[in-house]
Amino acid sequence: MSESPTWQLASFVTRSTWDAIPADVRAEAGRAILNYLGCALGGSIEPALDKAIDVLKPFSGPANATVLGRNECFDELNAALLNGIGSHVHEYDDTLPQNYIHPSVPVASALFAYASANPVSGRDFVHAFILGFEVESRIGDAVYPAHYEAGWHITSTTGVFGAAAATAKLLGLSTEQTVWAFGLAATQAAGIREMFGSMAKSFQPGRAAQNGLTAARLAAADFTAGERALEGPRGFAPVTAREYDLGRITAGLGDEFALRANAYKPYACGLVVHPTIDGCSQIRERDRPDPAQIASIELKVAPLVLDLCNKKDLRRALESKYSIYHAAAIGLARGKGGLQEFTEEAVADPTLKRLRDRVSVAAEESVTEDQVDIRVTMDDGSEYTLFVEQSLGNIHRPLSNAQLEGKFRDQAILALAPDQVDALIDACWRIAELDDAGELARQSRPDAAAATAIGETA
Amino acid sequence: MSESPTWQLASFVTRSTWDAIPADVRAEAGRAILNYLGCALGGSIEPALDKAIDVLKPFSGPANATVLGRNECFDELNAALLNGIGSHVHEYDDTLPQNYIHPSVPVASALFAYASANPVSGRDFVHAFILGFEVESRIGDAVYPAHYEAGWHITSTTGVFGAAAATAKLLGLSTEQTVWAFGLAATQAAGIREMFGSMAKSFQPGRAAQNGLTAARLAAADFTAGERALEGPRGFAPVTAREYDLGRITAGLGDEFALRANAYKPYACGLVVHPTIDGCSQIRERDRPDPAQIASIELKVAPLVLDLCNKKDLRRALESKYSIYHAAAIGLARGKGGLQEFTEEAVADPTLKRLRDRVSVAAEESVTEDQVDIRVTMDDGSEYTLFVEQSLGNIHRPLSNAQLEGKFRDQAILALAPDQVDALIDACWRIAELDDAGELARQSRPDAAAATAIGETA
Repeated sequence: MSESPTWQLASFVTRSTWDAIPADVRAEAGRAILNYLGCALGGSIEPALDKAIDVLKPFSGPANATVLGRNECFDELNAALLNGIGSHVHEYDDTLPQNYIHPSVPVASALFAYASANPVSGRDFVHAFILGFEVESRIGDAVYPAHYEAGWHITSTTGVFGAAAATAKLLGLSTEQTVWAFGLAATQAAGIREMFGSMAKSFQPGRAAQNGLTAARLAAADFTAGERALEGPRGFAPVTAREYDLGRITAGLGDEFALRANAYKPYACGLVVHPTIDGCSQIRERDRPDPAQIASIELKVAPLVLDLCNKKDLRRALESKYSIYHAAAIGLARGKGGLQEFTEEAVADPTLKRLRDRVSVAAEESVTEDQVDIRVTMDDGSEYTLFVEQSLGNIHRPLSNAQLEGKFRDQAILALAPDQVDALIDACWRIAELDDAGELARQSRPDAAAATAIGETA
Repeated sequence: MSESPTWQLASFVTRSTWDAIPADVRAEAGRAILNYLGCALGGSIEPALDKAIDVLKPFSGPANATVLGRNECFDELNAALLNGIGSHVHEYDDTLPQNYIHPSVPVASALFAYASANPVSGRDFVHAFILGFEVESRIGDAVYPAHYEAGWHITSTTGVFGAAAATAKLLGLSTEQTVWAFGLAATQAAGIREMFGSMAKSFQPGRAAQNGLTAARLAAADFTAGERALEGPRGFAPVTAREYDLGRITAGLGDEFALRANAYKPYACGLVVHPTIDGCSQIRERDRPDPAQIASIELKVAPLVLDLCNKKDLRRALESKYSIYHAAAIGLARGKGGLQEFTEEAVADPTLKRLRDRVSVAAEESVTEDQVDIRVTMDDGSEYTLFVEQSLGNIHRPLSNAQLEGKFRDQAILALAPDQVDALIDACWRIAELDDAGELARQSRPDAAAATAIGETA
């Protein structure tokens, strides 16, 4: 029992100290939290969140927890769910390349809901975030790829463990109680890929956040669960994956941290068109071609790109996120791929439409999914070419802090006043020094007093 | 799309009329609801429910929904969860022999929570119950046995669909909205058998009730979901079962009803010792042997019985539920196997202990799990023998209405005053005639005015 993966993982969570967390991991946690909060603000005005708020409002408990980017408050369990919907709805959040988990949403959605309603220091918040992130990633490593290929939405199925671990740490659970929290998380692990493309997609990591927090709350009161949540013969790994490697749950535990491999999307769209937006944006920056005088754009891409994103004649905003033609157009005309580049307005923009019509795409086996070969020919016959070796945002070309700030700003401005955005960015970089991490959540409300500098009020 | 199993099942729910429900199915629904409500009252004083109530109380919304058998009120979503914990915690609820689903708990827990807070006629309540029961059973038939053998707690994984279907009917959802409710149910389908033996076990069907109701509530507001919840390549059936038969979801839909095969446990313990309690109770009734003069009790049982229930030296109350020795003792000494026969007091009862010590058991391949061969020898050498061919409670020897009433009374008296118990039994048999089904829930509160006759107040 004491040697089981479930027990060891729980013991890691309860014994972990802030001092034992390496500095680079702490710093990457800050970047992940900034990226998360920006996504939550960007998604805060989406219809899926509006609907969920309307439906759940009559059933909310005391309204002392914040839904990020909204003025409506809820009880902390419902707030965790709603934060998860808002922060994942644009699919602009972070990704672990080794297991395709979007790791921050389930963990941070629960933590921000909890911290907005209960006193939590910034340091404890970041520490809990790192542990939750680590737990879900390790469980994901153990069951990937069989689990994902079976059809599970791995972000929500492992996210519930991450949310449970993070909030178990803040609630001060014993190792045995944390084992029960993992059992209650396993009992609620759900979410299938059949829901992709509907509102139910973002509901899944939201429910994971809420269920993980509920698991920790129940376990704190000695609500018991089976103690072999992961490895038992009817546990999470055997039930949800034909093949799994439990050794990955504990290998290097405490020394290796998944946050070091975390990737942030620079563009609010399907991953395989990222190299094209990146390369076209570089040509725009370097050569400054006038979009009105572009005669043709030739792309050589990996075969998967055409499989997934071969849509030139766009009718709906969502389709633009999966169009290699639109990707080239926004790179050359706007030099970015934020939320505003994938709206109805962007689809109808005559400049972008004209450029889309001038793109031709060839699939080449020799081009990887991180690469693209671009040739832009102007009306006067001049040419600009570029080969993208590694796309911006992947592990070899991570977003800089300034680029993360730009992404944050691009989204946050949809919900907040400019001075609120500035204050939140500043506070986010200082989160581990804040007396009260909940201030970040409360200051994300549109009606929050923008003049109050975060962390200087207590 | 319109021919898919998911769509056809949703269409069945939305188009079904009360008049098209056969009379025997309506009558069996009444029996199932009586049995359910009794189990909820029997479980209402259990520590698992106490803990869950304590943990969730601070997060409850407006307290307008009833937790059966309790004075504490919650919002309807939390009440659905808590009703599910209370009604399943003793594992005394009903069973579908063909797929091992305990079908009433997820459906009725959601319905009673909903009806206690919203106006629902008794007829609409019973109709919704029949539809929810049918939906979960058909989905269970489609994925059983592979789904169950993989380790899924089929009661909760299919129960979430049943709860969604039942409440979708009451909310008046369109067929498309019901399809989305099924998608949102599939997205939340969870619960693994590794949790058996802990509080997390009863939490699972409770969460299924709550999640199904939430799914219907969201779908009613056009919160969308994938529309191939069951049959899609990443849908419920392919993801959770290696083998499945989607044809079973729609075969005979509207003509054949699963309620006709529903079985009610006569004894509050493991199923395989039921024949022994039954047979020993029959000997007690027929031959009236004085327990103090019994010299030996010899049993011939199916091999599985000794695998699962070969525990003579009992220390904890829970162990008595899985002891073939205790089963024979309570049958001969008390003639019943209600909740009171599996308490600490019962384990310590000198008469029962003396009898347990006199039991010897032989496993015989020729004896089925529904059978037992019993020989009781008295101190004076006289013998009483009995062979049980079909155990009480199985499909061939269903509990009579009077026996169901006795089971109800045995449990309800733990929570309510005797006149409340009488009034509830009377009202339960008349449920389809009640103007307000919620009265049943509200009158299950210990502090409810016992003098008010249900259904005569409006």
